[in-house]
Amino acid sequence: MKHTLSHSRRLRDTPFTSGVEAAGVKSYTIYNHMLLPTVFEDVEFDYHHLKSHVQVWDVSVERQIELNGLDASKLMQMLTPRDLSKMQSDQCYYVPIVDNKGKMLNDPVAIKHSTTRWWISIADSDLLFWVKGLALGAGLNVDVFEPDVSPLAVQGPKSDMLMERVFGNEVYNIRFFRQKRLKYADTSFIVSRSGYSKQGGYEIYVENSQYGMALWDDLFKAGKDLSVRAGCPNLIERIEGGLLSYGNDMSMENTPLECGLGRFCKTSEDIGHIGKEPLALEFKQGPIRQIRAISILGEAVTPPRAAWPLLKDGMQVGQVTSAAWSPDFEINVAIGMVNAQHWNPGTELSVETPQGSRIARVEERFWK
Amino acid sequence: MKHTLSHSRRLRDTPFTSGVEAAGVKSYTIYNHMLLPTVFEDVEFDYHHLKSHVQVWDVSVERQIELNGLDASKLMQMLTPRDLSKMQSDQCYYVPIVDNKGKMLNDPVAIKHSTTRWWISIADSDLLFWVKGLALGAGLNVDVFEPDVSPLAVQGPKSDMLMERVFGNEVYNIRFFRQKRLKYADTSFIVSRSGYSKQGGYEIYVENSQYGMALWDDLFKAGKDLSVRAGCPNLIERIEGGLLSYGNDMSMENTPLECGLGRFCKTSEDIGHIGKEPLALEFKQGPIRQIRAISILGEAVTPPRAAWPLLKDGMQVGQVTSAAWSPDFEINVAIGMVNAQHWNPGTELSVETPQGSRIARVEERFWK
Repeated sequence: MKHTLSHSRRLRDTPFTSGVEAAGVKSYTIYNHMLLPTVFEDVEFDYHHLKSHVQVWDVSVERQIELNGLDASKLMQMLTPRDLSKMQSDQCYYVPIVDNKGKMLNDPVAIKHSTTRWWISIADSDLLFWVKGLALGAGLNVDVFEPDVSPLAVQGPKSDMLMERVFGNEVYNIRFFRQKRLKYADTSFIVSRSGYSKQGGYEIYVENSQYGMALWDDLFKAGKDLSVRAGCPNLIERIEGGLLSYGNDMSMENTPLECGLGRFCKTSEDIGHIGKEPLALEFKQGPIRQIRAISILGEAVTPPRAAWPLLKDGMQVGQVTSAAWSPDFEINVAIGMVNAQHWNPGTELSVETPQGSRIARVEERFWK
Repeated sequence: MKHTLSHSRRLRDTPFTSGVEAAGVKSYTIYNHMLLPTVFEDVEFDYHHLKSHVQVWDVSVERQIELNGLDASKLMQMLTPRDLSKMQSDQCYYVPIVDNKGKMLNDPVAIKHSTTRWWISIADSDLLFWVKGLALGAGLNVDVFEPDVSPLAVQGPKSDMLMERVFGNEVYNIRFFRQKRLKYADTSFIVSRSGYSKQGGYEIYVENSQYGMALWDDLFKAGKDLSVRAGCPNLIERIEGGLLSYGNDMSMENTPLECGLGRFCKTSEDIGHIGKEPLALEFKQGPIRQIRAISILGEAVTPPRAAWPLLKDGMQVGQVTSAAWSPDFEINVAIGMVNAQHWNPGTELSVETPQGSRIARVEERFWK
């Protein structure tokens, strides 16, 4: 069923919206109270193009939270079970944000400017409120706010070539999940080798909205012969790559272990995270359910609007939360959460879709 | 420009979504990570119908936050500058939520179940994170969570008649902004005389999603001869009535005084609100800008997607954040925020719309 989106100031435009709309965006989702494009030509066309060329993505919705003050590093470590003590100043850390009950509140990427200044590049929840509330309640010496920073991603196999043309060959010195501050016009931006696809690429943290459209236009001018197009996180490609989406594949109901993020949690010693105890207990006992790659047999499914129950002998043993037909793998690729007794690769379950029941198979790994 | 909305689990369906879609909803907005209908027939048709008959609104997006525990009342008073000490147990209080810097984080309605149990019926921000964070940081003895409660509103001049048929004549004993728990089937719901329109009506706090569609169907069966229709908060009607929208007309940048909510703030003594000091200072100095009713002359405007600057002699002196053509008042009705020097009724300014400059007039009051 197709519905139009009613625009209003509450669903914020971005510094790149005029470019996105001139490029013919057809659909949006809302993410952090802001417009996130979802379709330009159609999801399959956008998918093939992303895997072959280079795309410029308006991911301004990855809002930043700045922690600024003497207690910034202490607060940052209170928020996440990932050990930040060895983080280098050019690293980007994926940091599950976990509350005092061991539940996920967000799964952002953190950038450390210095011991007194951090950015958190957030997924879809008002993490600002959590961080502000916690800091205030605990009486910490730190300012917490959303700065004027809007990430623009350059993704796809030709992203190196395009980025070199705009930012120079220093881009090749940025390793995966590392960042550098690079000159642009009369300013400079943090550029990281990262992004919400498995096709390679960069994220440019555009500080000061006024530079947005100039950079957008420069990237398109420089990439004409590379078939550059406006794009966006692609539903099919992100499922193939096992890139989780907070709010879709996991929520405040889930623990990092359930999300397969155990490697980002240190529970062997007290690093200062507020959720150490429940996490340590779960590490000992093991999670009762976990994220799995799932394939759904048969013809193409319509992507889910709600969780689809996974059944074994009529009993619910899990759910599918993201699914789409993959043209490259010629199967419905999906992300689900499956109870421990049924999560072994090869297990066949049934999945209840709005179009009827299908066979769902637990896979060893994601597709790419 | 029309864009479709890409559905996903992250944009949550409600217990009434199947009813809403069977009734032919055409457009949605997203509010608290959930679907909020915005258009059924068209905005003007829905408007005339709302003012003449009765509508059933899926306002599940008014999510509840439950504060449950010995420190619930203390925490509730930390959150808001409104004095809660005399609140009676059947009252609904509009409670600006204001941080330690005196800025608005939400403008919800609070319901007091007891001194140890409150609900906050929230506007569009993850207030849950603020309340949880603050409670944890301050070491309070209280659980904070989102219960399975989805409000359904019955609005319009015939709402008394419809509600009586489903809930009995006890509904007439509920005064404005008061609530009562009324029987429904084998359960009971809190029913308040309230709602996001000026046409009169009720909000039913449906506990347990499983009752949702039964109640929806009962209301439509009972209201057939009253011309009952599915409806939603109406852009034109809410502007005529001066009903503010958090995220549109005000944000975390604004104080309650700027929003015209000074009467809900007690600063003369320390009631326990965390933002007393900045608010007391602002009360002394007076706000530098404030919400005003604005009319925009000339033909019908397209409702704004972003703030429209209000200018005087080429200098920005405010902004318009909501606007729509009013068929009943035959003018563009609008909500804006205007600097102190220019906010007197009758002041003429110019407003920069995407379709060009127009004359904007500061009005004495809203239209209804």
